[in-house]
Amino acid sequence: MKLVRYGEDGYEEPAVMLEDGRIIDAGEEFHDYDEGFFACGGLDSLREWVAGGCEGGREVAPEMRLGPPIARPSKIICVGKNYAEHAKEFGGEVPDEPVLFMKSTSAYCGPNDDVVIPQRSNKLDYEVELAVIIGRTTSYVDRQHALDYVAGYSLMCDYSERAFQKERSGQWVKGKSADTFAPMGPVMVTRDEIADPQGIRLWSRVNGELRQNGWTGDMIFPVDYIVSYISQFMTLFPGDIIATGTPAGVGMGFEPPKFLQAGDCVELGAEGIGQTIQRVVHL
Amino acid sequence: MKLVRYGEDGYEEPAVMLEDGRIIDAGEEFHDYDEGFFACGGLDSLREWVAGGCEGGREVAPEMRLGPPIARPSKIICVGKNYAEHAKEFGGEVPDEPVLFMKSTSAYCGPNDDVVIPQRSNKLDYEVELAVIIGRTTSYVDRQHALDYVAGYSLMCDYSERAFQKERSGQWVKGKSADTFAPMGPVMVTRDEIADPQGIRLWSRVNGELRQNGWTGDMIFPVDYIVSYISQFMTLFPGDIIATGTPAGVGMGFEPPKFLQAGDCVELGAEGIGQTIQRVVHL
Repeated sequence: MKLVRYGEDGYEEPAVMLEDGRIIDAGEEFHDYDEGFFACGGLDSLREWVAGGCEGGREVAPEMRLGPPIARPSKIICVGKNYAEHAKEFGGEVPDEPVLFMKSTSAYCGPNDDVVIPQRSNKLDYEVELAVIIGRTTSYVDRQHALDYVAGYSLMCDYSERAFQKERSGQWVKGKSADTFAPMGPVMVTRDEIADPQGIRLWSRVNGELRQNGWTGDMIFPVDYIVSYISQFMTLFPGDIIATGTPAGVGMGFEPPKFLQAGDCVELGAEGIGQTIQRVVHL
Repeated sequence: MKLVRYGEDGYEEPAVMLEDGRIIDAGEEFHDYDEGFFACGGLDSLREWVAGGCEGGREVAPEMRLGPPIARPSKIICVGKNYAEHAKEFGGEVPDEPVLFMKSTSAYCGPNDDVVIPQRSNKLDYEVELAVIIGRTTSYVDRQHALDYVAGYSLMCDYSERAFQKERSGQWVKGKSADTFAPMGPVMVTRDEIADPQGIRLWSRVNGELRQNGWTGDMIFPVDYIVSYISQFMTLFPGDIIATGTPAGVGMGFEPPKFLQAGDCVELGAEGIGQTIQRVVHL
């Protein structure tokens, strides 16, 4: 099942994308895809409603703006340096255990929204990532059971301002949290439709040039490990998002670096999830 | 005006604390002290309701559990090393600009709730801090206008697991985010009642021993600077919390370190805001 949300920023309605690509509004039946939805068995109810033919749901015009496929989460946790080749281009060692950091949830936005260059930014970079959406509250879950707590998967760009991240008195959150730095979508694919989260091809293009061409099987710490690991340090709530790290090919990895400029077009894709396009604009 | 919330964890009701210390339920009039409350002029409505004698509000029994004085925020942003003496005991230089990090909002809890030692923790530490609660959405606010966006102030303990924070592959969020690591309260004092946020005495005691005895006037970066600074990197939403750093005297600053043990009693105080007590317990 593919969950989507559509409509104006801040006023999105829940919907589902059918196998044939049509989007059917679910707003009459479901309030939103938020923490309460996942906590209260919303996914099961939605599945029943879809199996019953989406009764009462009207088709959404394909030109509607897509919002992120689930509501603003309580947190966005990111895993740093989770692909060996990227760890090298970032200028660091391959970590012994997952590197965690947060993005402010105010950075969260729709999959095809413009990415806005922050004031005083000159090192804007892209990172295509598999996003994991938590389905049930969990704490101290072991690796064997970790995927039971996953609702589904999506595609996120972890936009990063490298100067803010690395040259402004420590802690990466500063370079990860500007508005529009966390576009997600186009859909959330439920876990049952992704047989193996380590078998997904991820790519990014900038102005048509292939920059990242990775595979989640190359993660140093796979999804089950990450979910279990994070849950040792904090409780995960339904609807929380984990960005699982990016493969090699980000702008800072080139010599000279290829940072994003206004007017650039960033295309991202994840096999089985979909594709997104963000245009880089000035504030 | 002093905002409080009382009741069982997750089911708190909004209330106000009157000058005489009585707590009056406001749950009939107000849904909760959350993002929507602050965004939609809730503080003004509450002020009117209180000025009118809290019509219809019944007194709350003083033995009721207090929750945190505002609902779970969209983010908790913390400023590290913001007092020079603490920066030294932490083993670092005084920073050139504010060090920012996040606590997971799942760590947020009531002011007198037990603090729970995480699994595999052996370096649990306390940090008494002035908490700033944002009242209106802001981005790129200048220092001169920053306090206009503050709803009020509270007291937070930024509990920290030093091994998780410093010895587990980078980024402090790992040591800052366990459940119960962000008790806040007992009240949120509205901004109009705190003439100068740099004139507040802060203290902490462990088992009766005075550990921290600081003064917000010693902050390296004062509150207006911090609010303005953070807003350069992310949009602040109504109800967001900023923990402004801790004065010297944390457990890791002693030789040998004085980390917390099960059974310890941590008392915190902030002049004009109130006092809290947390007991340290095993998971």
